[in-house]
Amino acid sequence: MNVLQTSHQYPGLLIVVEGIDGSGKSTQLQLLKTWLQQHEYDVFFTEWNSSSLVKKTTKIGKKKKLLTPTTFSLIHATDFADRLEQAIIPPLKAGMIVLADRYVFTAFSRDVVRGVHRDWIRNLYSYAVRPDLAFYFRPSLQTALDRILVGRANLKYYEAGMDLGLSHDPLESFRIFQERIMREYDAQVAEWGLEVIDSNQSIEEMQAQVRERVYKFLEERPVPKRQ
Amino acid sequence: MNVLQTSHQYPGLLIVVEGIDGSGKSTQLQLLKTWLQQHEYDVFFTEWNSSSLVKKTTKIGKKKKLLTPTTFSLIHATDFADRLEQAIIPPLKAGMIVLADRYVFTAFSRDVVRGVHRDWIRNLYSYAVRPDLAFYFRPSLQTALDRILVGRANLKYYEAGMDLGLSHDPLESFRIFQERIMREYDAQVAEWGLEVIDSNQSIEEMQAQVRERVYKFLEERPVPKRQ
Repeated sequence: MNVLQTSHQYPGLLIVVEGIDGSGKSTQLQLLKTWLQQHEYDVFFTEWNSSSLVKKTTKIGKKKKLLTPTTFSLIHATDFADRLEQAIIPPLKAGMIVLADRYVFTAFSRDVVRGVHRDWIRNLYSYAVRPDLAFYFRPSLQTALDRILVGRANLKYYEAGMDLGLSHDPLESFRIFQERIMREYDAQVAEWGLEVIDSNQSIEEMQAQVRERVYKFLEERPVPKRQ
Repeated sequence: MNVLQTSHQYPGLLIVVEGIDGSGKSTQLQLLKTWLQQHEYDVFFTEWNSSSLVKKTTKIGKKKKLLTPTTFSLIHATDFADRLEQAIIPPLKAGMIVLADRYVFTAFSRDVVRGVHRDWIRNLYSYAVRPDLAFYFRPSLQTALDRILVGRANLKYYEAGMDLGLSHDPLESFRIFQERIMREYDAQVAEWGLEVIDSNQSIEEMQAQVRERVYKFLEERPVPKRQ
């Protein structure tokens, strides 16, 4: 049952990026995508919380501030289950490279900080496909804050973790919230073999490391190129 | 973490009814509700899959026949989590008698038949409040079929378990599906101490047994009456 514990057997490749907001992970994944496409790979991109099936629910829930940690967690799990079966496994079966902006490790960090149990949430996602490569972009907290707050007047309610009652000041709440999430991510490096990328570096430096790692992986486990 | 294993500490009372379609459970619960209200109890009624938060999602998913066993299960779990925290625990805290038409045992039966793992689904609902009384209405399969099919032209796709590919004939599919669900329910009698009510009896006979059991329970563990 615990699929997440073993490697998948599909011909494709699953690469995921993780990290707190402002870690640069999305930019890095987009750059990786372009690079892979230039090298004639068939690439499929998917991101956290984007399933059409649950988008509306999340929106309503967030708007009404109705979400408790458990419902919040379950809505994301439903979104993930839907995407896994509709959008991740089919391209993997077809031999494509699937790039996922956030994966189960986001839930293992964020939902735990929100208050759900570590074992419960791991069981919840136990049917997920184990990624072939999982990059964890790790900035210093200050670097992340600087990146996020540039040209931004307001932090959103859930983004700042305001539902946790950490602080009445959104900025302070956000700082505490992100720091806790980072701690949960850090603990998962050993647990899941996440590849840590120091995100205090420049975009170019990070991308060079990512490409090198992916290149090495593709040499060992080649994936079909575009026909 | 496994709240479902231990009794709750709220002043209220949680009574749930379970059973396959056509077992008569909803009718029995409505009759019990009326009876309790006549005896001056504050009663709160809630039913499976009725949370406003996820109603729309379920509807879309069912319409598009997009639901895999896991997403189907997670949508129901989200609905349940939402109702538990918004509609079940608050009245229990307020000392009311909460009547639930279907509870976690529905998921433990139906979702397992649809293909999710027994342990996974139990973990998923492990945070639920353990009911004080859980009635399991058990008809013979033929009794249930007769009750359901009276004056009904069509069985709905998911209701008949057509997504499981059991049979091309909706009626035959429904029969196999309900029989399997019944087997899962039966196995839970010992697991959770469900109170079995023989649903081949008349409405009056069943109701008499239900009232007797509830009456006895209320003698042992009184609940405040309406002020």
